[in-house]
Amino acid sequence: MDEIRGRVRNKSLHSKIVAAEEAAAVIRPGMNIGASGFTLAGYPKAVPLALAERIRREKFRINLWTGASVGKELDAALAEVNGIARRMPYQTSDGLRKAINSGKVEYADIHLSHMAQMAAAGFLGGKVDVAIVEACAITEDGHIVPTTSVGNSASYVQDADIVIVEINTTQPVELEGMHDIFLNQPAPNRLPIPIVKANDRIGTAYIPCGLDKITYIVPCNIPDAVRELAAIDENYRAMTAHLIEFLKFEIRAGRLPKNLLPLQSGVGSVANAVVAGLVDSDFEDLTVYTEVIQDGMFDLIDAGKLTFASGTSLTPSPAGIKRFYDNLAAYRQKILFRPQDISNSPEVIRRLGVIAMNTAIEFDIFGHVNSTHIAGSKIMNGIGGSGDFARNAYLTFFFTTSVAKGDKISSIVPMCSHVDHTEHDVDIFVTERGVADVRGLSPKERAKVIIDKCAHPAYQPLLRDYLERAEKSTGYAHTPHMLDEALSWHSRFLKNGRML
Amino acid sequence: MDEIRGRVRNKSLHSKIVAAEEAAAVIRPGMNIGASGFTLAGYPKAVPLALAERIRREKFRINLWTGASVGKELDAALAEVNGIARRMPYQTSDGLRKAINSGKVEYADIHLSHMAQMAAAGFLGGKVDVAIVEACAITEDGHIVPTTSVGNSASYVQDADIVIVEINTTQPVELEGMHDIFLNQPAPNRLPIPIVKANDRIGTAYIPCGLDKITYIVPCNIPDAVRELAAIDENYRAMTAHLIEFLKFEIRAGRLPKNLLPLQSGVGSVANAVVAGLVDSDFEDLTVYTEVIQDGMFDLIDAGKLTFASGTSLTPSPAGIKRFYDNLAAYRQKILFRPQDISNSPEVIRRLGVIAMNTAIEFDIFGHVNSTHIAGSKIMNGIGGSGDFARNAYLTFFFTTSVAKGDKISSIVPMCSHVDHTEHDVDIFVTERGVADVRGLSPKERAKVIIDKCAHPAYQPLLRDYLERAEKSTGYAHTPHMLDEALSWHSRFLKNGRML
Repeated sequence: MDEIRGRVRNKSLHSKIVAAEEAAAVIRPGMNIGASGFTLAGYPKAVPLALAERIRREKFRINLWTGASVGKELDAALAEVNGIARRMPYQTSDGLRKAINSGKVEYADIHLSHMAQMAAAGFLGGKVDVAIVEACAITEDGHIVPTTSVGNSASYVQDADIVIVEINTTQPVELEGMHDIFLNQPAPNRLPIPIVKANDRIGTAYIPCGLDKITYIVPCNIPDAVRELAAIDENYRAMTAHLIEFLKFEIRAGRLPKNLLPLQSGVGSVANAVVAGLVDSDFEDLTVYTEVIQDGMFDLIDAGKLTFASGTSLTPSPAGIKRFYDNLAAYRQKILFRPQDISNSPEVIRRLGVIAMNTAIEFDIFGHVNSTHIAGSKIMNGIGGSGDFARNAYLTFFFTTSVAKGDKISSIVPMCSHVDHTEHDVDIFVTERGVADVRGLSPKERAKVIIDKCAHPAYQPLLRDYLERAEKSTGYAHTPHMLDEALSWHSRFLKNGRML
Repeated sequence: MDEIRGRVRNKSLHSKIVAAEEAAAVIRPGMNIGASGFTLAGYPKAVPLALAERIRREKFRINLWTGASVGKELDAALAEVNGIARRMPYQTSDGLRKAINSGKVEYADIHLSHMAQMAAAGFLGGKVDVAIVEACAITEDGHIVPTTSVGNSASYVQDADIVIVEINTTQPVELEGMHDIFLNQPAPNRLPIPIVKANDRIGTAYIPCGLDKITYIVPCNIPDAVRELAAIDENYRAMTAHLIEFLKFEIRAGRLPKNLLPLQSGVGSVANAVVAGLVDSDFEDLTVYTEVIQDGMFDLIDAGKLTFASGTSLTPSPAGIKRFYDNLAAYRQKILFRPQDISNSPEVIRRLGVIAMNTAIEFDIFGHVNSTHIAGSKIMNGIGGSGDFARNAYLTFFFTTSVAKGDKISSIVPMCSHVDHTEHDVDIFVTERGVADVRGLSPKERAKVIIDKCAHPAYQPLLRDYLERAEKSTGYAHTPHMLDEALSWHSRFLKNGRML
């Protein structure tokens, strides 16, 4: 308790320190709860667990709004007691995914940069009622110092009538100073976001709140539920090698500066492997303007190749979080966390000329990308920030292995079973087989390059056959498709467990 | 000739005035030609016609890059002689469309805000070789005063080695002062675009060029080939009425300011009808931040309801262009033309909080939009600027009539045959039947609202039947689809000429 009191720097707030159960009791059925958290980082834990217990007894539901995905103490715990009626804007929880794909939870899968604006405008079914935010400290003036993510916390705190702050004593107070909180005016009074370099500071080191606005303060000692990343296998290594070769070619051709442009990489193992792979390259003075800071970026910083990384959250492995905490004094000079409508801002991404690297579930021969659905119907996670970056980047890459589940699934298909990024949005496709650069190409040209460079040999003849017959049957139309057959690969997979 | 000399204000340039044939002779096979023009406005005419004549004799092909669509003297004339190898980023020409849909022209359908950046970066197959720009005058310092559109002209002039200026004497010199040309630095040195209101001027009244950079000056006296808009029928009136009722509801609910936010409306009859319909509403102090200024906006200005309109081109009817020229002194106070990467800038659109209103070919029950293709394969026009606005707007509307070709085609289908705007991008769908507000809804909820509010009664039972069976067969998955049936409506239309 002394440690909590030390972190709540204004003594007048000490009377607001309560147990999680007391804070959770303020939540009423049907409320919109705006929580901190972006990936398995910086999300509240104690109050959600207490809320789940209360819901188990009292049987009611709330709407859960977050930054992005959150850990098991929030999504899984509330889904398990059927406590979530509506969820936005992103999730990666096994339990919640099952509930969404069986009609038990309504899920709106929203571009991460849009969420705060839409919530504040009252577009999502009322405004946020309760903000629950993890913090490492509360300042003398009652402002909130976040932990390992910022997400939408600043916006939710601003909009909510009730603010609950979880002081997490497993998060070091030395995180203070690693955040840059900028809240724009609402339209039509918005001003330019004055970031012109990844390391520009434009806001405050805390979430503006104030002594009066804090309703409850809750102690918490549960660490972020960080997860292991998949091992970097030979497919990941091949994709990274292709990427690096391609970037070098672009530099030689005068189309990219020698130290590249600010890098973004999506969440997950492929993206992390690609970033880690840059360690062995001879690129220098790199910068990162992204959502999530993963283990690979620590490698780049340690190798002296990455001068600065801007994101909205830390998404390390268990070993990575230890490494981060152990070397906080060094990393805090090189890493900054921003609100997700700034980290993912179309304005800033386009201005800086970000190189966007994200992972696809599948893409089709004409260049559309599916990031969210398995065989059209079942959602996996959601679009996350991939659309914010892909649409506005200087160069947009999508990565995937050419086949999945052995070779039962081809990740390159005649037509995507769900489209999240259109043919207009993507420049370069990368699989372990190679790189398809489709900039300025027509759909039929794209198809030939994507099949030749990216598809698996087991599927190349089938894809070529589809394309040729579609060309002939449509008289060489702009995007030749045979609609009776376009989705038959997915149908076959659903029936027989394999696309072949 | 005297009039031309008067418009070319520096006498040292008079020796560069040549006939169109002489200027066209500088173009070599395979060159990238960057032309002015955005819709049937401000595109070069004399040099393209001379080039088409030369190609008819000499049989070669060039790559044509423009602002957006252009008139018949450019696209149709060159397509007729098979003179276009590759076309970007948008077109609306009957002849060219046929060539694209029969494999004779490679067409890359690119977001209009992306084109200048991609061309300048050398991403589209080399840089622009020759810029051909229509002007109403050339200043004493050799800078170019555009006519009825800006498009990508400033960027093409900056990038090209050879610059041909067509002085069009049918375009009044009084257009001077109606343009605001801002060219940002390339990444990573880009700065914020300092527009915070639709009428902010941030650049020069001319396209920077200089005396030395102009290669040839060609006289032209062919007017813009403006086109009649479709008459405003009862369907258009119904959509407008729905829109206005919806906007008023949003104002009453406190979600929009009383004078709305800056309006964007796509090119074409539906959009024009919607804007014209605002004349009879009681909205005041409206502003417009859009691509094209159409007849409807003159009505709004004349009614004293529109205080300012920012665009990149004028796209009037024959009567509209006469009205514009006749009242130029008044309209020039209220209208400004910007480069299309500024008119369509994600940064500015998001900052201002634009209300985006665009037309769909079809949309599906889950909220995806097809703006470009007929039954999956044949392209109609292209995405144009609809993606720039839809993705970044404060509120994104798509309009279409619920059925087409009598009732042979339902514009609301189980699954779009091509996706240009995803479920993540659209807030509100409008047909003559009603308004479907899908903000914050899950796909299954969206489907119910879209079918109920927007679909035609002849198709509603079929859509409900598809949804119910898909829900059951997928166990109420997030986006329930039956892949064997999802595109069957389009297949049936291709085989039998009707979806039913």
